[in-house]
Amino acid sequence: MTSANTDVTSPSNFPPPADSKTRVSQFMKQLQDEICEALEKLDGGGKFREDSWEREEGGGGRSRVLREGAIIEQGGVNYSEVFGKQLPPSILQKRPEAEGYPFYVTGTSMVLHPRNPYIPTVHLNYRYFEAGQFWWFGGGADLTPYYPVAEDAAHFHRTFKQACDAHHPEYYPVFKRWCDEYFYIKHRQEMRGVGGLFFDYQDGQGELYQGPNPEGAAATYSAQVGELEPRSWEEIFAFVVDCAHAFLPAYVPIVERRRGSEYGDRERNFQLYRRGRYVEFNLVYDRGIIFGLQTKGRTESILMSLPPLVRWEYNYQPEPNTPEAELYQTFLKPQDWANWSPS
Amino acid sequence: MTSANTDVTSPSNFPPPADSKTRVSQFMKQLQDEICEALEKLDGGGKFREDSWEREEGGGGRSRVLREGAIIEQGGVNYSEVFGKQLPPSILQKRPEAEGYPFYVTGTSMVLHPRNPYIPTVHLNYRYFEAGQFWWFGGGADLTPYYPVAEDAAHFHRTFKQACDAHHPEYYPVFKRWCDEYFYIKHRQEMRGVGGLFFDYQDGQGELYQGPNPEGAAATYSAQVGELEPRSWEEIFAFVVDCAHAFLPAYVPIVERRRGSEYGDRERNFQLYRRGRYVEFNLVYDRGIIFGLQTKGRTESILMSLPPLVRWEYNYQPEPNTPEAELYQTFLKPQDWANWSPS
Repeated sequence: MTSANTDVTSPSNFPPPADSKTRVSQFMKQLQDEICEALEKLDGGGKFREDSWEREEGGGGRSRVLREGAIIEQGGVNYSEVFGKQLPPSILQKRPEAEGYPFYVTGTSMVLHPRNPYIPTVHLNYRYFEAGQFWWFGGGADLTPYYPVAEDAAHFHRTFKQACDAHHPEYYPVFKRWCDEYFYIKHRQEMRGVGGLFFDYQDGQGELYQGPNPEGAAATYSAQVGELEPRSWEEIFAFVVDCAHAFLPAYVPIVERRRGSEYGDRERNFQLYRRGRYVEFNLVYDRGIIFGLQTKGRTESILMSLPPLVRWEYNYQPEPNTPEAELYQTFLKPQDWANWSPS
Repeated sequence: MTSANTDVTSPSNFPPPADSKTRVSQFMKQLQDEICEALEKLDGGGKFREDSWEREEGGGGRSRVLREGAIIEQGGVNYSEVFGKQLPPSILQKRPEAEGYPFYVTGTSMVLHPRNPYIPTVHLNYRYFEAGQFWWFGGGADLTPYYPVAEDAAHFHRTFKQACDAHHPEYYPVFKRWCDEYFYIKHRQEMRGVGGLFFDYQDGQGELYQGPNPEGAAATYSAQVGELEPRSWEEIFAFVVDCAHAFLPAYVPIVERRRGSEYGDRERNFQLYRRGRYVEFNLVYDRGIIFGLQTKGRTESILMSLPPLVRWEYNYQPEPNTPEAELYQTFLKPQDWANWSPS
């Protein structure tokens, strides 16, 4: 760990601490606890119910679901720990060097579907992988509004930018763009929402951006590829912890501001229709879901992110000059939300 | 075309007629017309609305949708014709010899979502491929009941069995099993419904069964592999025509029998919940949808099969000794419906 530190070609230069798995899994469980506690308080009605489960091939988890709360129509917060002999193809494709090693993954993920169409749906996921001498962190959070409120999108982004900037000025710009690319619904040529942060394969070896989605958003909105000095396991873990803790301050104020907004059938119908896009993204593109199904995870926990009620409508087009049209025109395209200002 | 007929290794021994594309596309359009006409008559209220569209890379189609009919909550019948320089990976994987050839595909597909939970959802698809000297037919129809009625499942299967048996006694047993395997939701370990017929890659070269789904249903319910004498293009086309025409007599009597069944919130909620499985199958496993998205088809036409309203419910389990439980226990597992008799 002296001058060899500059050799970034070998991941063994940056080994995790001996208690890495315990520390990360402890943190992921605490994150689940903190989020559930805060959401119950926020909702003021609904309570999370927990199911603990074990995975036959190794590992298990605890799934918590809140249904029919005062604000949250359905919310799922899932902690899991999975180990096995061999990473599945969807991961090995990006990390071929990890082939043949037993693996360990732990993480917490969450999706909230509020009832009021003025409150955005939100998703969070943080995860940690080890396979042989290889390790990496991934995660992020992204916001999916139904009705366009620039102030909310800006608040969400700024909160995460602040958390990122405390660790490295390159983090936010790179991971914000990666998020725009990742949560892109190719067959609709739409983003899932207003984005947030997304990162993966953070192993301390300097290469920040390891996307892209070459046929999708990247074609028109190419990510900045950041290269920076090698970072230790501790530095990256500390960044992940701070990002994860930024979720509540990023989201709770939005709920507080919109919880009283009145809505009728029009807004509810549009919300149910747009929830269909969430289903399309999650079932067609989401890597976490594909990983879960490929590793024979618990189906009910993997699909907990699907909305409680959804509508599809053939050939729907929003009417011009409506909030619904504005969502498509502005909010479902990449925007520099952190620098937004009321005009 | 004399003794060379016995050499089944070369597909050029069985060339299609010079007007193959015209004849098949004409038939596929007629099939769309016949089905739409019969369904409007059956529904007695709803009318199909048509959108014609062109595909940038070559081809086009006409999509017809009936919404909020008296019986049909949503039904889509889609005709399309697609040509291009190169088949997409999902097809080339099974037909590597067609790589590098321009291709032509024409077909008609249909999904009906009735409002009454006692009327099953139904799907039909017939299609024809040419790529260089290679050609093949695929298709079938399958039934997805919400409430279990053995008589209906038996009627559906028997109608298709009769159409098959007029052409070859091996067709029904092989294609019925292939259907059970294909419409299998691996992550739920459930069939999508009670099946029907499914076949693909029928090129006259004797090998009937070209599945399977090795990790899924096939593991416990292995298909009979039929090998039979080579068949001409004309013979296979005639079989496809008869199968396609068997759809209305297979389905319409079921609708007539169940259209008056009374139902309440319980049945409606269960129907909406089970429709979620349709979405899961179509977005995660359906080859037609993957083909459509990969060939940059018209998204609204490809996803026309998704139900108008859908529910997901975390960890739902049917109560023992209810019709809902019977659906899972008996109807979502392979059964010999053609030989069913009232006990």
